[in-house]
Amino acid sequence: MTGSLTIAGLGPGDPEMTTPEVFAAFADATDIVGYAPYVARVVPRVGLTLHPSGNRVEVERARQALWLASEGRRVVVISSGDPGVFAMASAVFEALEAVPQWHELEIHVLPGITAMLAAAARIGAPLGHDFCAINLSDNLKPWPLIEKRLRLAAEADFAIAMYNPRSANRPDGFARVLELLGEAGCGDRLMAFARAVSTPDEQIRMIKLREARPDMADMRTLVILCNSATRRVGRWIYAPRQVR
Amino acid sequence: MTGSLTIAGLGPGDPEMTTPEVFAAFADATDIVGYAPYVARVVPRVGLTLHPSGNRVEVERARQALWLASEGRRVVVISSGDPGVFAMASAVFEALEAVPQWHELEIHVLPGITAMLAAAARIGAPLGHDFCAINLSDNLKPWPLIEKRLRLAAEADFAIAMYNPRSANRPDGFARVLELLGEAGCGDRLMAFARAVSTPDEQIRMIKLREARPDMADMRTLVILCNSATRRVGRWIYAPRQVR
Repeated sequence: MTGSLTIAGLGPGDPEMTTPEVFAAFADATDIVGYAPYVARVVPRVGLTLHPSGNRVEVERARQALWLASEGRRVVVISSGDPGVFAMASAVFEALEAVPQWHELEIHVLPGITAMLAAAARIGAPLGHDFCAINLSDNLKPWPLIEKRLRLAAEADFAIAMYNPRSANRPDGFARVLELLGEAGCGDRLMAFARAVSTPDEQIRMIKLREARPDMADMRTLVILCNSATRRVGRWIYAPRQVR
Repeated sequence: MTGSLTIAGLGPGDPEMTTPEVFAAFADATDIVGYAPYVARVVPRVGLTLHPSGNRVEVERARQALWLASEGRRVVVISSGDPGVFAMASAVFEALEAVPQWHELEIHVLPGITAMLAAAARIGAPLGHDFCAINLSDNLKPWPLIEKRLRLAAEADFAIAMYNPRSANRPDGFARVLELLGEAGCGDRLMAFARAVSTPDEQIRMIKLREARPDMADMRTLVILCNSATRRVGRWIYAPRQVR
């Protein structure tokens, strides 16, 4: 048996947003590797071994998956959302780089609906014009770089999708982000907090930046700061296509 | 019958990347509205009226769809990729804004795999760190704004996904983009040209910015300029998670 490794995105939560090619990969797999709450979203069956693991062990998990594939297993590593956006794909290639004999393994990446697209769809079309995506966690990058990127993104008048805005061990960063964006002149911009989109816990809140409070976000929240041209219509908000 | 309007994303081309909820919307629809090549991707059936239209008539198409929904039809407006990313969702909300009696219509937006996610998956993980998405068409925004955003994005060291890089009636803009990004110090950054991903015409090319030529892109190409830390491993490229 020739092993393979597939890095697949589950989408935001509802299986109705998981692509057919991801389900096909599950049907063909011998092993599923991932963070435990995501592995719990895979339907078990005879012949499929589930390997749930804890948070923050991405590279160990990637090594395990590559090792299983090198032993001839058909392995699927799963992420929520899209595996290439602040998720497992980078960790797998990092682990791959360290072991040259793995470089010729058969690898596939299957995209998924990332959180900002799912959130935007619930809100209207806040990403209908140029935008950026910034991970607000400083676990793997220096905090001043996050601040620099936010300032440049505000100056560019990008809509800004913010991933991982706030967690128990980083309670204060998001307060500083709101302050910085206010200082950058974004106070009147529309802002959306989209929590756990497409799950039973889904919550959507739309306000202006100046009304935002840090505790409106947690680790399950995707935050979008809209560009300055974004408008409300009925219960929706959208970025106009035309900008002068 | 109560009408409804669903704005749905088909993904990049292969139906294996179209979500189940989009297929369910087609099964429930009475009318499909969209640009002709996308409407051709919907399987016809009795009771489903197809309304293909030409390019560059987004707002007229949106008005037609809203009018049909207001008459009690169950209408699906389709875009390639994700409808919220440089596609039909903004045009629909713009058309909606102009007609207050339509504001209470039942509207749903169904996300899709946008071109940059499909392209990134073929290449590795170029969007594994902070990134932005810029539409290079100046049909609806001034060219100097495109240049300003590219300069700020380069300074932020974002990976930059470029949509609509080049078309027959805009042959020269992309040459200027390559020149500008070179002047901004990005010459050694990796760059990917991903054409018609997931279709029979798929072509992927990975080079450095300084080797890029304008004719490597056309309207079916999604271009990604990687961030400065992005590395090659085997046939893949990836943005490391850790940045110092």
